[in-house]
Amino acid sequence: MKLDEYLSDTRSRFETHLQHSFQHSPSEQLKNAIHYSLLDGGKRLRPALVRAAALACGQSNQHWLIPASAIEMVHVYSLIHDDLPAMDNDDLRRGKPTNHKAFDEATAILAGDALQTEAFLQIAQATEFNDQQVRRMLTALTKASGGQGMVGGQMLDILAEETSITLEQLQHIHRLKTGALIQASLAIGALCKEDVTDSVLQQLEVYGDAIGLAFQITDDVLDVTSTTEVLGKPQGSDAEAQKTTYVTLLGLSGAKQQAHFQHQRALSALTDMGLNETSLLWQLADYILYRDH
Amino acid sequence: MKLDEYLSDTRSRFETHLQHSFQHSPSEQLKNAIHYSLLDGGKRLRPALVRAAALACGQSNQHWLIPASAIEMVHVYSLIHDDLPAMDNDDLRRGKPTNHKAFDEATAILAGDALQTEAFLQIAQATEFNDQQVRRMLTALTKASGGQGMVGGQMLDILAEETSITLEQLQHIHRLKTGALIQASLAIGALCKEDVTDSVLQQLEVYGDAIGLAFQITDDVLDVTSTTEVLGKPQGSDAEAQKTTYVTLLGLSGAKQQAHFQHQRALSALTDMGLNETSLLWQLADYILYRDH
Repeated sequence: MKLDEYLSDTRSRFETHLQHSFQHSPSEQLKNAIHYSLLDGGKRLRPALVRAAALACGQSNQHWLIPASAIEMVHVYSLIHDDLPAMDNDDLRRGKPTNHKAFDEATAILAGDALQTEAFLQIAQATEFNDQQVRRMLTALTKASGGQGMVGGQMLDILAEETSITLEQLQHIHRLKTGALIQASLAIGALCKEDVTDSVLQQLEVYGDAIGLAFQITDDVLDVTSTTEVLGKPQGSDAEAQKTTYVTLLGLSGAKQQAHFQHQRALSALTDMGLNETSLLWQLADYILYRDH
Repeated sequence: MKLDEYLSDTRSRFETHLQHSFQHSPSEQLKNAIHYSLLDGGKRLRPALVRAAALACGQSNQHWLIPASAIEMVHVYSLIHDDLPAMDNDDLRRGKPTNHKAFDEATAILAGDALQTEAFLQIAQATEFNDQQVRRMLTALTKASGGQGMVGGQMLDILAEETSITLEQLQHIHRLKTGALIQASLAIGALCKEDVTDSVLQQLEVYGDAIGLAFQITDDVLDVTSTTEVLGKPQGSDAEAQKTTYVTLLGLSGAKQQAHFQHQRALSALTDMGLNETSLLWQLADYILYRDH
């Protein structure tokens, strides 16, 4: 399948599935606030990774939908909380008012909290998985998203705003803040297949680490080379915020070189995996490197 | 065992266990903020319920410690977020600055987020439980704490501040906001025993519902009848905030009568359970009704 077609097919199946979430919410306002951010479109990169990993491991049914929802719920909760006045204080996301602007801060905090919990509940209740799969998925997802992963990275990122950091520290922050959840997407996708081997899981970890870093480096490059129109957010905003990025640390060509290096690392891991159906994972690695926004 | 002795023994074992949490946090600040609220003392009622339910089901080893940590982490995360300026805007808790006052709002939001995730991670990784126990515990805990439970109740409570509500609505809010987590404490305690029966779990649900309501009604009564010194918070604060309470809806003697009715319901459920070791659950029901703060 071509990547464009795959991404749009994944998005449409996925969004239909999400619309049925939170039907049992005791509060309409809470449900509306959650759906406002959850059904807001976006690239749905993490769900596409979940499904591609499941396919690579030979699981071609619809079992990927629940882990994909779960990972997207964790991602969306982190965006809602990151946008809050006490954090990044953003008024707009994808051209629409952020959650706390469309509703209010208390509702946004609770919507994020409830999304996090629901991610884990969905997996715990998924009848298509046995108890061991559920436990392994929940271990991967909670490890990646909590204090040892995404939330820890967000904390370090906030603290780093006031200081200058090294390349090693920058990579550490990105590995936690965005890389861990990308790795978890692949792990829970692969775990849709009951008998996935440890060796495949390990190679997917390397692939995920590499595309996670390539994704972030490309983000930093695009902030310098793209335009505000194409990016959908102000070009040059990193420089304006005096943020340490791969470009400030390595220069533009050094950063591009590093992105290509990570891209190669990702492809090597795919080769080492020795699976047949890795074409979508190849295309996703290319997409992450060559995208324009 | 006498209740006083049991509570203090539970507290001391539990707090030693908690001190070892978050050792792998990549950020000292995040760990410090989490420990600040998590090791802050408190009654540790939920951990005491977890352990008492495990004992009632015949599980007398230390297996209760991890589910007890998990439920307390969920409880403490909810307190940190509830205290935020956008929510209840409280500067003090148990006589100490609240988390966002001792640190800052961003750190408090992230500390709450990380505590929630860690609760589920601890259970997912607990080697003392089999995969089915882990799945059942996580289902109970996520259902009780998310949008269908505690967070949903918190949302309804905030929305109710601006309106007058009926007794039915008040009970609905309390069942979600505090009752669900009390019920989950008992469920995950009972699930420490691999072969706990559905009938015991159902009776514990009734017991939990009844003591949850008795707890809240007693809170409302004490706000009128106790003193600021004994309560550790301003007496009469509900009336000042013009909150709908059991006392405003039923009068003082009506509220006391309702608390006694729920207490009786709890004791009947214990009798129906047909277990031998329910003496601590009896004493805990009494404690909830007859406490002075």
